[in-house]
Amino acid sequence: MQHVLSANQFTKEDCERLFTIATRIKTSPWAYSHELTGRIMGSLFFEPSLRTRCSFEVAMNRLGGKVFSEGNATYSTSTAKGESFKDTLKTISQYVDVVVVRHPQEEIVAESANMSDVPVINGGDGMNEHPTQALLDLYTIKDAFENTEGLTVLFTGDLLCSRTIRSLLKLLKPYGTKNILARAMPPDLAYFENWSWIEEGQIEELLPTVDVVYMTRHQRERSLAREESRFVMTAKLAEKMKPTSVIMHPLPRTEELLEEVDNNHRAIYFQQAKNGMWVRMALLYSLLKERDWQ
Amino acid sequence: MQHVLSANQFTKEDCERLFTIATRIKTSPWAYSHELTGRIMGSLFFEPSLRTRCSFEVAMNRLGGKVFSEGNATYSTSTAKGESFKDTLKTISQYVDVVVVRHPQEEIVAESANMSDVPVINGGDGMNEHPTQALLDLYTIKDAFENTEGLTVLFTGDLLCSRTIRSLLKLLKPYGTKNILARAMPPDLAYFENWSWIEEGQIEELLPTVDVVYMTRHQRERSLAREESRFVMTAKLAEKMKPTSVIMHPLPRTEELLEEVDNNHRAIYFQQAKNGMWVRMALLYSLLKERDWQ
Amino acid sequence: MQHVLSANQFTKEDCERLFTIATRIKTSPWAYSHELTGRIMGSLFFEPSLRTRCSFEVAMNRLGGKVFSEGNATYSTSTAKGESFKDTLKTISQYVDVVVVRHPQEEIVAESANMSDVPVINGGDGMNEHPTQALLDLYTIKDAFENTEGLTVLFTGDLLCSRTIRSLLKLLKPYGTKNILARAMPPDLAYFENWSWIEEGQIEELLPTVDVVYMTRHQRERSLAREESRFVMTAKLAEKMKPTSVIMHPLPRTEELLEEVDNNHRAIYFQQAKNGMWVRMALLYSLLKERDWQ
Repeated sequence: MQHVLSANQFTKEDCERLFTIATRIKTSPWAYSHELTGRIMGSLFFEPSLRTRCSFEVAMNRLGGKVFSEGNATYSTSTAKGESFKDTLKTISQYVDVVVVRHPQEEIVAESANMSDVPVINGGDGMNEHPTQALLDLYTIKDAFENTEGLTVLFTGDLLCSRTIRSLLKLLKPYGTKNILARAMPPDLAYFENWSWIEEGQIEELLPTVDVVYMTRHQRERSLAREESRFVMTAKLAEKMKPTSVIMHPLPRTEELLEEVDNNHRAIYFQQAKNGMWVRMALLYSLLKERDWQ
Repeated sequence: MQHVLSANQFTKEDCERLFTIATRIKTSPWAYSHELTGRIMGSLFFEPSLRTRCSFEVAMNRLGGKVFSEGNATYSTSTAKGESFKDTLKTISQYVDVVVVRHPQEEIVAESANMSDVPVINGGDGMNEHPTQALLDLYTIKDAFENTEGLTVLFTGDLLCSRTIRSLLKLLKPYGTKNILARAMPPDLAYFENWSWIEEGQIEELLPTVDVVYMTRHQRERSLAREESRFVMTAKLAEKMKPTSVIMHPLPRTEELLEEVDNNHRAIYFQQAKNGMWVRMALLYSLLKERDWQ
Repeated sequence: MQHVLSANQFTKEDCERLFTIATRIKTSPWAYSHELTGRIMGSLFFEPSLRTRCSFEVAMNRLGGKVFSEGNATYSTSTAKGESFKDTLKTISQYVDVVVVRHPQEEIVAESANMSDVPVINGGDGMNEHPTQALLDLYTIKDAFENTEGLTVLFTGDLLCSRTIRSLLKLLKPYGTKNILARAMPPDLAYFENWSWIEEGQIEELLPTVDVVYMTRHQRERSLAREESRFVMTAKLAEKMKPTSVIMHPLPRTEELLEEVDNNHRAIYFQQAKNGMWVRMALLYSLLKERDWQ
């Protein structure tokens, strides 16, 4: 059995293998519509989610599987009666064939996965990791550029709290991109060697030179006191970018990315969201197709 | 692509075509149980609902389709993180083949539908419209009477806030019914030419002459200050009606319709609720059957 | 039609018939994976639940059926608009083929079941009954011991509020077990003749002689003022029990059962939870397989 807990698990070879399947599914989804017949996915979200939960559940359904869905697990499960997360996970793993979990607490998914009798997928744990988001982001970048070697990726927004960026930086390492984080990161948060940083005020002058702007939202629901990002992407700024460049965002967005940018051809964040479905289909297919029903 | 946003969209011919399908499905549901295999409906409710949500989701399932369901969208989606409704709708439309939405804000579904890449069905938007309820109401009236021409339909209850009546009056127009609204409507709310109104105190004397009493609930969850309806249907009052007449109610009911009326043969509100399933199956079938999977 | 409302309904013969089916399904689940194709279960939970709701929904899915799921019915249905439970049940029964209900109010499921046009299964009503939990408990005991005649079953925890024990004691009657309740039960709560009671302080000395310890949780969400249970099962205490004995718990647990006990071979509470799926599959199969689609 194999849990999906961290972007660290995925070598470049793993990613490439997964993306090949994702592209095949995207090209002919009907060919895969009975692959997981009889399998059931538990979807256990202790925090609100639209994209992750919906795309995972639809992915399972489009592969012929079924879903037990709980979008408000804090209230509707036995957590309300004082049950530990480990017991909840151990229990649900008695019934289903794979579990997707989102939880506000860092590391809790990884720490509890060994309690589960079936594969566990981390759907986001606090500010820590969101490995499947990183996978779909990388897939989207690779889909937009023939060659990733030497691409400049500029990260903006609330970097400190973003599990998305944390996971994506790990995956990008073997792909030869030049990663720039816009604004001060506390020096103790050194994830990797493969990034540099600039002040937010320098973004505008850098825009004409970058290939990917990866924006993130100010995470109102996380409670760290800190200096806030003030950069706002406008249609006018987008036009300053290279014609071949792209603007990405894991969504949801708030005020940092204006709706007027949506019609710019560089805006690929809704395709990015849709890619989440293909990549998650590929992941579920990989995890479950070769397993026997217990 | 065709969204279902308002009762205004439906000509008499559209209704008749839809009702023919609904009756066919009602007669032999098994014959339609694989028609939407592989299709997925998103069910996004920003307000509580039992009948509309359950009958839509069961309708999709009974046609062989599947459902992504969110009955508490205000909490469980990214709305909690500040995402706009337009972005939510655009996103979910990346994953599913049709979206049903209920939202407390008037017009928001119609205003945002163009953001969606798949058909959007308005499952009720504030006090504005509830087109599929109107369709099932009309279907129920036509099912109960051979000929609608000249039928007297008496509307009672909280008319001002009822999206149900608002939508139904639009649909009834070409069917030649005489529509009477019981109690004062503000003069600026003139939906259509085809209704008159009486004081609530006059209901009792009118009862022996009407064919349909269409009751509505006092909508506690809407916040307009206004004079309240006080009419209560009792078993005794029901007996004063013509033997061929019927009592309808979109449900839920509160104090305006006593449980003692349920056993009267004129009470058809639970059949009316059930008809919702057949009409919604017909609607989903019509919207999706001829579409190619994207 | 047959509702499942109370453990009282089940004779020893009924239990044996059901368990035979459960064991057959457990042995070859794939053989039953299309038995309920086209059938839909309504899952209506007015109280939090993980095991009962998930195992029922997965059971229906593993039999080929589908589910309309509402895990937070108090908020998301028309209860929020003042609808009575009877109307809610009557309405949902128009759409689905079987309904599972959990409700905080005692007797309400049994009192309202006659409103339903399809079978209703009591998934727990306040402190009253939880018949399917009792069935899976009995199944688990019978699975662990060749012969139940003369087995000593010790019940510990918050017995006064436990619908689980209430229902299980009823079922155990014809099975010849010796049932001991640990701590004072108010004398007016005499369910049956087939139990005796001891003080909680006597548990430890009794442990080496019992075959089954059936533990229950302190039910924080029930509001009766009463003396609290203080017995805690530890790894050390578990070792004092007979090698052939078992420790059961309906879960969720809180402080009364330490995690260190999980690795003791006597701990079978997670298998007990899993048995819930097989028993509920057998129950749904029995209720629906011979019914024609309405």
